[in-house]
Amino acid sequence: MSNPTASLLIIGNEILSGRTIDANLSYIARVLGTAGIRMTEARIVPDIEARIIEAVRALAASTTYVFTTGGIGPTHDDITAASIARAFDVPLVRNAEAERRLRAYYPPEKVNDARLRMADIPQGASLIDNPVSTAPGFVLRNVHVLPGVPRIMQPMLDLLVPTLTGGKPLRSRTVVCDEAEGVLADGLRQLQATHGSVEIGSYPGQRDGRPETSIVFRGTDPRAIEAAVLAFADLARQIGFAAEDQGLAPL
Amino acid sequence: MSNPTASLLIIGNEILSGRTIDANLSYIARVLGTAGIRMTEARIVPDIEARIIEAVRALAASTTYVFTTGGIGPTHDDITAASIARAFDVPLVRNAEAERRLRAYYPPEKVNDARLRMADIPQGASLIDNPVSTAPGFVLRNVHVLPGVPRIMQPMLDLLVPTLTGGKPLRSRTVVCDEAEGVLADGLRQLQATHGSVEIGSYPGQRDGRPETSIVFRGTDPRAIEAAVLAFADLARQIGFAAEDQGLAPL
Repeated sequence: MSNPTASLLIIGNEILSGRTIDANLSYIARVLGTAGIRMTEARIVPDIEARIIEAVRALAASTTYVFTTGGIGPTHDDITAASIARAFDVPLVRNAEAERRLRAYYPPEKVNDARLRMADIPQGASLIDNPVSTAPGFVLRNVHVLPGVPRIMQPMLDLLVPTLTGGKPLRSRTVVCDEAEGVLADGLRQLQATHGSVEIGSYPGQRDGRPETSIVFRGTDPRAIEAAVLAFADLARQIGFAAEDQGLAPL
Repeated sequence: MSNPTASLLIIGNEILSGRTIDANLSYIARVLGTAGIRMTEARIVPDIEARIIEAVRALAASTTYVFTTGGIGPTHDDITAASIARAFDVPLVRNAEAERRLRAYYPPEKVNDARLRMADIPQGASLIDNPVSTAPGFVLRNVHVLPGVPRIMQPMLDLLVPTLTGGKPLRSRTVVCDEAEGVLADGLRQLQATHGSVEIGSYPGQRDGRPETSIVFRGTDPRAIEAAVLAFADLARQIGFAAEDQGLAPL
């Protein structure tokens, strides 16, 4: 059976302006990969309702799970919850349990309208617990809405993932070679043709000013990965370059 | 006149698997912003022809300029040039000038079929010079195809941008406050409503375990940005928090 898929919608002007470099995609992709869920697309859109609606509808239709990051705080530029509600034609309503949690978290004099708006979520959505700063995320259909701040998002995702239906864990094995990828290319092409169940990627790099190439073998079957790596080791011996096997790792 | 827009298509399994954190979006967005071109969307897709075709067509129709990164090297997983050709229904052909450059760059014994495939580009495309490693990028219609390796991509983009029609430079000014954004939210909402030409973003953070908030004022009119910042300073005096103005910067 093929693995479930996931997409990520990153919502935020600060990523598109270049001010902030997103690191959530990498974290989410690796955690999901370990659970056997393969990330197959990501999109980054600005804080504009129509753009969020268009993107979340497209991704919800094309992947098993959608995750969103960003735009669920208390300020005017936090429009994710309202946009998701509009995307699925449901009203945005004050969630009583979310309000209770927020009122329990803030001292009474610090509760204000802006903070309580973080309890407004689409009708029918269920909450995603936030063990760091209380304000919850939510799940509506196959869309999982998370905050953009990594130290808050990460523990929320860690709690969420065990509730999802996954698949065989995705694994990768990296072999680093002291040779330019242009020299390896013909052999790699044949290797990929004969090891179809393993995704073989070639990534050029440098060490001490000399070219090196990382070959990444990725898949769900450790024995198929092992077979492809052994075939690559044969290629290395033929062409005569050194290859350092960095071992199997979760994605 | 409104600014031209740009989108970025990041092509690569290594980004979607979480193995590599993309930093090209941030660099490209900042260089374009300085030239008055606003990044309005980014997508990340795997090394699959149909997915590249679908994304590049959508982005070419919705933004003034499209940039792509990744997938133009010599190996089997480098399928960007062929995919762009298919997206616009033109043949992929060996470009004589690109071949001449590659043959001049590599010692004769290092020229091979795989490396010469880097001279195969869509018919009618023009070359983007590569001052680092020779293999060129290309422009077809409004699509600008660049490599994924940052130290090669960056100087190519720097040479390319002056050839594009830009607009008024995008600028930002950041004010950091020693207050949680939940306290600032109501005032910021009013501020945004009365300073519509300036995009006001609020980004929560921490310093020494205490909450702080970065307020980012972004736009093309330095006087409008200045006016919004002064209005925010009034707000700071009213609420009674300290605000450190980090000054105007190119985006």
